[in-house]
Amino acid sequence: MAMQAAFLAGFSQLAAQPSRDCAVAVAPTRVAVAAVGSAKVGARVGLKAGIAAPAPAAGRGVRCRASLIEPDGGQLVDLVAPEEGGRRAALRREAAELPHRLRLGRVDKEWVHVLSEGWASPLQGFMREHEFLQTLHFNAIRGQDGRMVNMSVPIVLSVGDAQRRAIQADGATRVALVDERDRPIAVLSDIEIYKHNKEERIARTWGTTAPGLPYVEEAITNAGDWLIGGDLEIIEPIKYNDGLDQYRLSPAQLREEFARRNADAVFAFQLRNPVHNGHALLMTDTRKRLLEMGYKNPVLLLHPLGGFTKADDVPLSWRMKQHEKVLEEGVLNPESTVVAIFPSPMHYAGPTEVQWHAKARINAGANFYIVGRDPAGMSHPTEKRDLYDADHGKKVLSMAPGLERLNILPFKVAAYDTKQKKMDFFDPSRKDDFLFISGTKVSFHSCCVTL
Amino acid sequence: MAMQAAFLAGFSQLAAQPSRDCAVAVAPTRVAVAAVGSAKVGARVGLKAGIAAPAPAAGRGVRCRASLIEPDGGQLVDLVAPEEGGRRAALRREAAELPHRLRLGRVDKEWVHVLSEGWASPLQGFMREHEFLQTLHFNAIRGQDGRMVNMSVPIVLSVGDAQRRAIQADGATRVALVDERDRPIAVLSDIEIYKHNKEERIARTWGTTAPGLPYVEEAITNAGDWLIGGDLEIIEPIKYNDGLDQYRLSPAQLREEFARRNADAVFAFQLRNPVHNGHALLMTDTRKRLLEMGYKNPVLLLHPLGGFTKADDVPLSWRMKQHEKVLEEGVLNPESTVVAIFPSPMHYAGPTEVQWHAKARINAGANFYIVGRDPAGMSHPTEKRDLYDADHGKKVLSMAPGLERLNILPFKVAAYDTKQKKMDFFDPSRKDDFLFISGTKVSFHSCCVTL
Repeated sequence: MAMQAAFLAGFSQLAAQPSRDCAVAVAPTRVAVAAVGSAKVGARVGLKAGIAAPAPAAGRGVRCRASLIEPDGGQLVDLVAPEEGGRRAALRREAAELPHRLRLGRVDKEWVHVLSEGWASPLQGFMREHEFLQTLHFNAIRGQDGRMVNMSVPIVLSVGDAQRRAIQADGATRVALVDERDRPIAVLSDIEIYKHNKEERIARTWGTTAPGLPYVEEAITNAGDWLIGGDLEIIEPIKYNDGLDQYRLSPAQLREEFARRNADAVFAFQLRNPVHNGHALLMTDTRKRLLEMGYKNPVLLLHPLGGFTKADDVPLSWRMKQHEKVLEEGVLNPESTVVAIFPSPMHYAGPTEVQWHAKARINAGANFYIVGRDPAGMSHPTEKRDLYDADHGKKVLSMAPGLERLNILPFKVAAYDTKQKKMDFFDPSRKDDFLFISGTKVSFHSCCVTL
Repeated sequence: MAMQAAFLAGFSQLAAQPSRDCAVAVAPTRVAVAAVGSAKVGARVGLKAGIAAPAPAAGRGVRCRASLIEPDGGQLVDLVAPEEGGRRAALRREAAELPHRLRLGRVDKEWVHVLSEGWASPLQGFMREHEFLQTLHFNAIRGQDGRMVNMSVPIVLSVGDAQRRAIQADGATRVALVDERDRPIAVLSDIEIYKHNKEERIARTWGTTAPGLPYVEEAITNAGDWLIGGDLEIIEPIKYNDGLDQYRLSPAQLREEFARRNADAVFAFQLRNPVHNGHALLMTDTRKRLLEMGYKNPVLLLHPLGGFTKADDVPLSWRMKQHEKVLEEGVLNPESTVVAIFPSPMHYAGPTEVQWHAKARINAGANFYIVGRDPAGMSHPTEKRDLYDADHGKKVLSMAPGLERLNILPFKVAAYDTKQKKMDFFDPSRKDDFLFISGTKVSFHSCCVTL
């Protein structure tokens, strides 16, 4: 009789309905999650959820674009060299000839991917020192227009001392970024090199310096003692060739898809573990409430994280299979759901990181973000307690500079209602009717969604 | 031939001249630093620098108040119960009878002092959780008007678990704050109790959790595991009876003094060690440049920190004696200098803390802040290096949310010019002419002003 539980979305902060760009009102499209037109590369990316055929591109008479939330900085950053005009070939040649080449690790390459598609808009590349300092101290960066955009985790590239000295001795301003087999991926230009104080970076990002933080061990402990920032230009879109690339939709592709469906609200939900019935209740209930508020076509962005995760998290390929199943079985409505992969690596930095998760979804067009208990949290690596207060993520998110435009949907608890014999929102006035895992209070605190 | 060196103010960010509240233009007053009218208590506080007689209050025909910079939140917070109307006596009676009494340590009492006079405006008392979280994550708090005010160090009061349980069991909403001899000092009302995660607080404030941080050892390590926030009302102004109380001018008293002098620019300079000739050059040069810019009467707020400092810093009483000497001997012009004590305790939290030092001076009326090398810095407690990058303080300060209105004056280096035979700004094009301590490069990095 063990049941799962989840925290479901409340509506403490809700926006007015967005306006539309077109005058002609059209009915919401009823197109399944199946194909997304890529404005950028002119290709079609088929989603293989197997739930519907691709919608014909010409199948709609009026291309009425809903006004999606504006990306941070006003314009979605795109750092992929265009094929047109020979730019891509020229960059490839230059990268092959540049005397200084930095080899990217797995996580570095994931950040190149993230940056190149504009998830971190308005960042134009790996952070220079002024961006790094603002991130560490303020979780936000002031743009050229004076406005703050949220930026809570450092997106930085390290370099060792010997290479740093060689670059500086040459007075180089551009370096090539290469993969593990020395193949050029990108060029970093107008570079700036500054000290990598790892202790300070870790303390300010995680609120602890205890040994055993997964991201730190993967990407910081053995990293170089210097950081190199600059403007990034990548030679071609990052691919993983793992059978999941069709799920890796860029913010531009997602925006295109939301516009094609005439979404007038996009609510994003990130899981790093499999979906279960509690989540499904949450997501369908959220859509229902948005409809009740007057939105005509709220679309769910079901957006599992695809980058580095710790060893005991469920692997991406399993999670994607499970997400497909949920759609195939109709637990979620494919017509109002887009499943895609968020390419960021995972910091497990709790209240600091959840801001990044939310901010990146603004850039992908989401104006609602569902936040659960202890988002991006984990157990303390050396003490018998959770690393973060389970409520801090939600609280910090709701107060974060640069996220004022995003509607935060804090969860309400769902559990198995033994009277109604179904998953439902937990009602504290008849708490004995509800069953969490094994019906214990302990499980209430340990069972729930891991975001 | 050992010479001292200092970093002197450059003018990278300068404001336009402030407007004045009155139509009648008057010459700047030429009144010595000697007496400050206290708007609040109606008393006069005599400065004992011995440099001039108090200016008669009626000595100026036109009380033209320069437009000083607005305090954070628009209004200077004042948490001292007024004597009028019996409020003070009533609060004293209530505090004596409240069942829950929290005993304040030395640093707690200094914070009560700081809060009560509005240095931390718009804070109305010890931080509640939403203020604490914003401080840790954003170094800034969003006010009721939606604007961010800077707030970089937590101003919090801890409580132990037994007392926390007792307070909560009673459902108490008000507690008395008492001194080491159990005498009531203040009442904290509409209280909120939340967890004191010391590790996270330390990591996010200092960027390290290394043992040996002076403030941590003094005020956090043995503090309670809970924090208690609320609205503060203090029974009477905090006094120390150490012969220096006349220097402890509140922000209101300082503003009154600046207005009385018709200051149209106030530039603040904080030292936690004695003034030397390099500092004096810095301060007179700053005034000269402000005059050249068109300000009619820039006034220096020479503002040593008076609260908790680490054991090897020079004691406050010595520093004040030395500050008096500098004025007596005419090294600084008493007519354009106000010497007062900033009552805050010292965190030694570098780039995080310097924001607090600057923000508090806005509340006291300063619109220029002089920032030196490695402000609020110290040696790493366990490693052979400085805890902070010497340039980060200046950089972080110049980018900090909520400090946009403050003009940051970064230092230029001064050293002994052997050709001119006087202290002067360091000129790298003839660097061999300049002498730092013992003429070594090492001393250049270790000699300088400690801010």
